[in-house]
Amino acid sequence: MGYCFKDLTATCQEDWRRYIEHDFVRALGTGTLDQNAFRCYLQQDYLFLIHFARAYALAAYKSRTLSDLRQAKAGLSTILDTELELHIGFCREWGISETDLAALPEARETLAYTRYVLEAGHRGDLLDLHVALAPCLIGYAEIAAWLNEQPTTVRGAANPFDAWITLYEGPEFQQAMLDEIAWLDARLAEVGPRRFQELSQTFSEATRLEVDFWQMGLDQRG
Amino acid sequence: MGYCFKDLTATCQEDWRRYIEHDFVRALGTGTLDQNAFRCYLQQDYLFLIHFARAYALAAYKSRTLSDLRQAKAGLSTILDTELELHIGFCREWGISETDLAALPEARETLAYTRYVLEAGHRGDLLDLHVALAPCLIGYAEIAAWLNEQPTTVRGAANPFDAWITLYEGPEFQQAMLDEIAWLDARLAEVGPRRFQELSQTFSEATRLEVDFWQMGLDQRG
Amino acid sequence: MGYCFKDLTATCQEDWRRYIEHDFVRALGTGTLDQNAFRCYLQQDYLFLIHFARAYALAAYKSRTLSDLRQAKAGLSTILDTELELHIGFCREWGISETDLAALPEARETLAYTRYVLEAGHRGDLLDLHVALAPCLIGYAEIAAWLNEQPTTVRGAANPFDAWITLYEGPEFQQAMLDEIAWLDARLAEVGPRRFQELSQTFSEATRLEVDFWQMGLDQRG
Amino acid sequence: MGYCFKDLTATCQEDWRRYIEHDFVRALGTGTLDQNAFRCYLQQDYLFLIHFARAYALAAYKSRTLSDLRQAKAGLSTILDTELELHIGFCREWGISETDLAALPEARETLAYTRYVLEAGHRGDLLDLHVALAPCLIGYAEIAAWLNEQPTTVRGAANPFDAWITLYEGPEFQQAMLDEIAWLDARLAEVGPRRFQELSQTFSEATRLEVDFWQMGLDQRG
Repeated sequence: MGYCFKDLTATCQEDWRRYIEHDFVRALGTGTLDQNAFRCYLQQDYLFLIHFARAYALAAYKSRTLSDLRQAKAGLSTILDTELELHIGFCREWGISETDLAALPEARETLAYTRYVLEAGHRGDLLDLHVALAPCLIGYAEIAAWLNEQPTTVRGAANPFDAWITLYEGPEFQQAMLDEIAWLDARLAEVGPRRFQELSQTFSEATRLEVDFWQMGLDQRG
Repeated sequence: MGYCFKDLTATCQEDWRRYIEHDFVRALGTGTLDQNAFRCYLQQDYLFLIHFARAYALAAYKSRTLSDLRQAKAGLSTILDTELELHIGFCREWGISETDLAALPEARETLAYTRYVLEAGHRGDLLDLHVALAPCLIGYAEIAAWLNEQPTTVRGAANPFDAWITLYEGPEFQQAMLDEIAWLDARLAEVGPRRFQELSQTFSEATRLEVDFWQMGLDQRG
Repeated sequence: MGYCFKDLTATCQEDWRRYIEHDFVRALGTGTLDQNAFRCYLQQDYLFLIHFARAYALAAYKSRTLSDLRQAKAGLSTILDTELELHIGFCREWGISETDLAALPEARETLAYTRYVLEAGHRGDLLDLHVALAPCLIGYAEIAAWLNEQPTTVRGAANPFDAWITLYEGPEFQQAMLDEIAWLDARLAEVGPRRFQELSQTFSEATRLEVDFWQMGLDQRG
Repeated sequence: MGYCFKDLTATCQEDWRRYIEHDFVRALGTGTLDQNAFRCYLQQDYLFLIHFARAYALAAYKSRTLSDLRQAKAGLSTILDTELELHIGFCREWGISETDLAALPEARETLAYTRYVLEAGHRGDLLDLHVALAPCLIGYAEIAAWLNEQPTTVRGAANPFDAWITLYEGPEFQQAMLDEIAWLDARLAEVGPRRFQELSQTFSEATRLEVDFWQMGLDQRG
């Protein structure tokens, strides 16, 4: 008993660091990332977001309280009303039109990650689904914060990827991370070792799938 | 081939009329409905809406296109942001506090109908789920229109239930009905007899569960 | 922490006794049950079993270990290969042909109970599904044992319903109950109060739906 | 209208041939496949089968007729009672113990394919799930038949992989393929172009995931 979110990252510490400090992330921070790598990432992240919207919808379905239902619906709305628009804007700036986005083939890494999360949600309950979603939601906020701590990170107009850091370091996204950690902490506090083992397996698998997603960008396989 | 929404009501014409023209509905129209019957209905309808929000969330999950995903999310938002608030307001006017609502036991009729719809959605695809939801969405709009055609219907301050009719005869709800019929017509046009038979079974069962829901109000079992 | 199966029945003790000692059960034991009530029950129980087979299939899908997968598959096989055949045989003895069974309309009580269990399984995880199934599996074994303890119970040829008691008092069914209790005890031992509250709500609702199912027989609504 | 299974392979003819005639398959036929490649494949196929058992369980849940329910249950039983045992035997012959199998990390290709199929089954109905399963069930039977037609294929003791071909060319597996094609043909005959487009997308994605699975063996990434 007495688990919390930090125990999830602790069980896959090496993979978690590989994800947070991935070469893709470092190159975003220094502004030296290959622009085609970023384009590939942006495009696949658009497809990713659509499936993540479906995952939040599944979380809304799985909710047992009006409060959880409203929270999941807020996540769904944020993706559909805000993040997708931002992505379409980002993509436009990087020379990718909405027509391109609609015709995009899905990379293996996008397919593997999104279907893993959705299926974990179906097999388990709302907590399983939140844990499968956590590496993305919590990880991106942690990545933005980590980048800001690195002396090599370049901010402002000198870094073509500055807008990406700005989005995820922003107060809204950071608050969403804190809320999610609080939600998880409250539930993990009551979980026994058998259940924690199931949850940490899901969390570490999803973390590795995030690593693959960065690598896909670097390899420009998307 | 070549089915449309009207073919669904045609396969259960008798049950459909029993639902649209139920004694509960008639008494709403004439203003003579027992007030405890209405209170019972309002309370259970509040619980019903929460599960229907979950059904729209399931529809969002099941969507294959961004357009279907956005449409389902709009339905979910309407229930959570508008209809639930309206219900809480209605309930307050009828002497039911939010504390009462939170502690409400679920009537058998509410449980049977909501779980039937949700399970039909899981078993089938997005079309099955829409068909299971149709008696509620399309039926309420048809009921409001039907009431307005009845010479016995009393409108305005003389009818304590006038606000209910106003809600469902309103242009937003009527338009939602037309949109839903259009969505169903487009898909049913391509359906073969085996599939139509499955869908019409779901539709007629959901219609009978609506009849039970009215009757629960009259019997004040909620 | 430290919950077990008995804690589930303890949270709905009154409903649990209403289910185990229902007038339908007592009349089965004394052999005085109305034969049409039994016929109604048998027919609806046939439909019930088909949906329970689907629930065991869902449990197989939701399994995280090969052992849970094999156990759920064994439950599915028992229903499809043994219990349904027994029911068809029972029904034949009571003058209900397989053609009758295939054309049977589903009673509201059957629909409510089966869809509730299936939907609880979708919303939650494997433990939620087991808890929703427990009143049926564990309850029937307990009912048969309870009947054998009652001085009023008539066994043998003098009781037209003796075969029913024989089925559920038999070593296979009793062992299945013990296995299920052991499975639940192992998992409930690790569950915290928030989760236990969710599970006990599902258990008590399913218990009340069992009471309704007996009552349906007495009322011959099936 | 008037689609059939052949129309599914026709929409992704190139990928279908890449799957059926993959270098892994050819090397199986000539007996020249690298033994570590085969070992890697066998191990991952063991994990694959466990998730495919879950997919058949999901098909049992999704069934609307007793006949479909029994058919899905038979598929589940075949995997759990026969194929897994055969795999454990195969693995033993190739020096992989059951302890090895239990501790096996899941390759990305296994994860991507299995979760894609399961999620496609949740999103859609029983037909979607069957279509997602078809490349495996129907493809393996076609591969065994195709190998037997190739002049380069070596059969008998001279080919260390002969047992693999024997399994899938056998009458039981070939009959299962014919039954599945008949089931699909009956349903696809009633499907319109919008629905066929959805189904063919699922089919071609699953086919590409089969190609990845062969390639994983060759690359020994499992």
